[in-house]
Amino acid sequence: MFVVAVYDVSQEKNSKVLKYLRARMHWVQNSVFEGNLTEGELREIKKYLEDVTDIGDSVIIYQMGNEKYIKKEIIGEEKGSSSQVL
Amino acid sequence: MFVVAVYDVSQEKNSKVLKYLRARMHWVQNSVFEGNLTEGELREIKKYLEDVTDIGDSVIIYQMGNEKYIKKEIIGEEKGSSSQVL
Repeated sequence: MFVVAVYDVSQEKNSKVLKYLRARMHWVQNSVFEGNLTEGELREIKKYLEDVTDIGDSVIIYQMGNEKYIKKEIIGEEKGSSSQVL
Repeated sequence: MFVVAVYDVSQEKNSKVLKYLRARMHWVQNSVFEGNLTEGELREIKKYLEDVTDIGDSVIIYQMGNEKYIKKEIIGEEKGSSSQVL
Protein backbone atom coordinates (compact mmCIF):
# COMPACT_ATOMS: atom_id res chain seq x y z
CA MET A 1 0.00 0.00 0.00
CA PHE A 2 1.02 3.61 -0.48
CA VAL A 3 1.94 5.39 2.73
CA VAL A 4 2.68 9.02 3.50
CA ALA A 5 4.22 9.76 6.90
CA VAL A 6 4.71 13.26 8.31
CA TYR A 7 6.57 13.58 11.57
CA ASP A 8 7.07 16.34 14.10
CA VAL A 9 9.39 15.20 16.87
CA SER A 10 11.68 16.96 19.32
CA GLN A 11 15.00 18.29 18.05
CA GLU A 12 17.08 15.63 19.81
CA LYS A 13 15.12 12.78 18.24
CA ASN A 14 14.92 14.32 14.81
CA SER A 15 18.06 12.88 13.23
CA LYS A 16 17.38 9.42 14.65
CA VAL A 17 13.85 9.29 13.20
CA LEU A 18 15.03 10.83 9.93
CA LYS A 19 17.74 8.20 9.56
CA TYR A 20 15.35 5.37 10.40
CA LEU A 21 12.70 6.48 7.91
CA ARG A 22 15.22 7.27 5.17
CA ALA A 23 16.32 3.64 5.22
CA ARG A 24 12.74 2.41 4.77
CA MET A 25 10.78 5.04 2.86
CA HIS A 26 11.37 7.72 0.31
CA TRP A 27 12.12 11.21 1.62
CA VAL A 28 10.09 13.89 -0.17
CA GLN A 29 10.27 17.03 1.95
CA ASN A 30 11.62 18.18 5.28
CA SER A 31 9.66 15.78 7.51
CA VAL A 32 7.61 13.96 4.86
CA PHE A 33 8.18 10.42 3.65
CA GLU A 34 6.39 8.25 1.08
CA GLY A 35 6.63 4.57 0.45
CA ASN A 36 5.00 1.58 -1.12
CA LEU A 37 5.05 -0.72 1.89
CA THR A 38 3.80 -4.16 2.74
CA GLU A 39 1.58 -4.62 5.80
CA GLY A 40 4.58 -6.08 7.62
CA GLU A 41 6.89 -3.20 6.76
CA LEU A 42 4.30 -0.66 7.90
CA ARG A 43 3.70 -2.58 11.13
CA GLU A 44 7.42 -2.52 11.91
CA ILE A 45 7.70 1.21 11.19
CA LYS A 46 4.68 1.97 13.35
CA LYS A 47 6.09 -0.12 16.18
CA TYR A 48 9.37 1.79 16.01
CA LEU A 49 7.59 5.16 15.97
CA GLU A 50 5.39 4.21 18.91
CA ASP A 51 8.51 3.32 20.89
CA VAL A 52 10.47 6.41 19.97
CA THR A 53 7.78 9.09 20.37
CA ASP A 54 7.16 10.90 23.66
CA ILE A 55 4.88 13.68 24.83
CA GLY A 56 4.96 16.46 22.29
CA ASP A 57 6.01 14.17 19.42
CA SER A 58 3.60 13.35 16.64
CA VAL A 59 3.63 11.30 13.44
CA ILE A 60 0.69 11.28 11.04
CA ILE A 61 0.40 8.23 8.80
CA TYR A 62 -1.88 8.24 5.77
CA GLN A 63 -2.48 4.84 4.18
CA MET A 64 -3.95 4.59 0.72
CA GLY A 65 -4.64 1.46 -1.23
CA ASN A 66 -2.99 2.46 -4.43
CA GLU A 67 -0.72 5.29 -5.50
CA LYS A 68 -2.65 5.54 -8.79
CA TYR A 69 -5.59 7.20 -7.08
CA ILE A 70 -3.55 10.00 -5.61
CA LYS A 71 -2.66 13.11 -7.48
CA LYS A 72 0.46 14.74 -6.16
CA GLU A 73 1.66 18.20 -6.98
CA ILE A 74 4.62 20.14 -5.74
CA ILE A 75 4.46 23.90 -5.63
CA GLY A 76 7.84 25.57 -5.40
CA GLU A 77 10.96 23.52 -5.11
CA GLU A 78 11.02 19.73 -5.22
CA LYS A 79 13.23 18.81 -2.27
CA GLY A 80 13.39 15.04 -2.29
CA SER A 81 14.13 13.08 -5.43
CA SER A 82 11.17 11.01 -6.61
CA SER A 83 12.95 8.97 -9.24
CA GLN A 84 14.43 6.60 -6.73
CA VAL A 85 11.92 4.40 -4.96
CA LEU A 86 13.31 2.07 -2.33
CA MET B 1 -12.05 16.20 -2.91
CA PHE B 2 -9.87 15.43 0.07
CA VAL B 3 -6.61 17.35 0.10
CA VAL B 4 -3.53 17.10 2.29
CA ALA B 5 -1.03 19.94 2.04
CA VAL B 6 2.41 19.95 3.66
CA TYR B 7 4.46 23.09 3.43
CA ASP B 8 8.06 23.98 4.08
CA VAL B 9 8.64 27.69 3.57
CA SER B 10 11.17 30.20 4.85
CA GLN B 11 10.79 31.49 8.40
CA GLU B 12 9.63 34.94 7.36
CA LYS B 13 6.82 33.57 5.19
CA ASN B 14 5.75 30.91 7.67
CA SER B 15 3.15 32.82 9.67
CA LYS B 16 1.63 34.31 6.54
CA VAL B 17 1.15 30.90 4.88
CA LEU B 18 -0.02 29.38 8.16
CA LYS B 19 -2.66 32.08 8.59
CA TYR B 20 -3.83 31.75 4.99
CA LEU B 21 -4.19 27.98 5.14
CA ARG B 22 -5.79 28.01 8.59
CA ALA B 23 -8.63 30.09 7.19
CA ARG B 24 -9.25 27.58 4.39
CA MET B 25 -8.22 24.15 5.57
CA HIS B 26 -7.98 22.17 8.76
CA TRP B 27 -4.65 22.30 10.61
CA VAL B 28 -3.50 18.85 11.73
CA GLN B 29 0.18 19.12 12.60
CA ASN B 30 3.00 21.62 12.50
CA SER B 31 2.97 22.30 8.74
CA VAL B 32 0.23 19.87 7.67
CA PHE B 33 -3.28 20.82 6.60
CA GLU B 34 -6.26 18.75 5.46
CA GLY B 35 -9.46 19.79 3.80
CA ASN B 36 -12.43 18.73 1.77
CA LEU B 37 -12.20 21.27 -1.00
CA THR B 38 -13.99 22.00 -4.22
CA GLU B 39 -11.97 22.28 -7.44
CA GLY B 40 -12.38 26.05 -7.24
CA GLU B 41 -11.18 26.29 -3.66
CA LEU B 42 -8.12 24.16 -4.43
CA ARG B 43 -7.36 26.22 -7.52
CA GLU B 44 -7.42 29.41 -5.46
CA ILE B 45 -5.16 27.93 -2.77
CA LYS B 46 -2.68 26.67 -5.38
CA LYS B 47 -2.63 30.06 -7.07
CA TYR B 48 -1.86 31.74 -3.74
CA LEU B 49 0.90 29.26 -2.93
CA GLU B 50 2.45 29.64 -6.38
CA ASP B 51 2.58 33.39 -5.85
CA VAL B 52 3.95 33.26 -2.32
CA THR B 53 6.64 30.57 -2.73
CA ASP B 54 10.21 31.40 -3.73
CA ILE B 55 13.40 29.44 -4.20
CA GLY B 56 13.79 27.06 -1.30
CA ASP B 57 10.08 26.98 -0.48
CA SER B 58 8.05 23.88 -1.15
CA VAL B 59 4.46 22.75 -0.72
CA ILE B 60 3.35 19.20 -1.44
CA ILE B 61 -0.32 18.74 -2.28
CA TYR B 62 -1.90 15.28 -2.25
CA GLN B 63 -5.35 15.09 -3.82
CA MET B 64 -7.54 12.10 -3.17
CA GLY B 65 -11.02 11.53 -4.51
CA ASN B 66 -12.61 10.54 -1.27
CA GLU B 67 -11.58 10.64 2.37
CA LYS B 68 -13.22 7.24 2.89
CA TYR B 69 -10.41 5.47 1.08
CA ILE B 70 -7.71 6.88 3.30
CA LYS B 71 -6.76 5.41 6.59
CA LYS B 72 -5.21 7.94 8.93
CA GLU B 73 -3.37 7.17 12.12
CA ILE B 74 -1.60 9.44 14.54
CA ILE B 75 1.30 8.09 16.55
CA GLY B 76 2.14 10.16 19.60
CA GLU B 77 0.31 13.34 20.31
CA GLU B 78 -2.55 14.66 18.24
CA LYS B 79 -1.63 18.30 17.66
CA GLY B 80 -4.43 19.75 15.63
CA SER B 81 -7.94 19.42 16.89
CA SER B 82 -10.47 18.26 14.37
CA SER B 83 -13.34 20.23 15.80
CA GLN B 84 -11.93 23.43 17.18
CA VAL B 85 -9.01 25.53 16.10
CA LEU B 86 -6.77 27.11 18.80
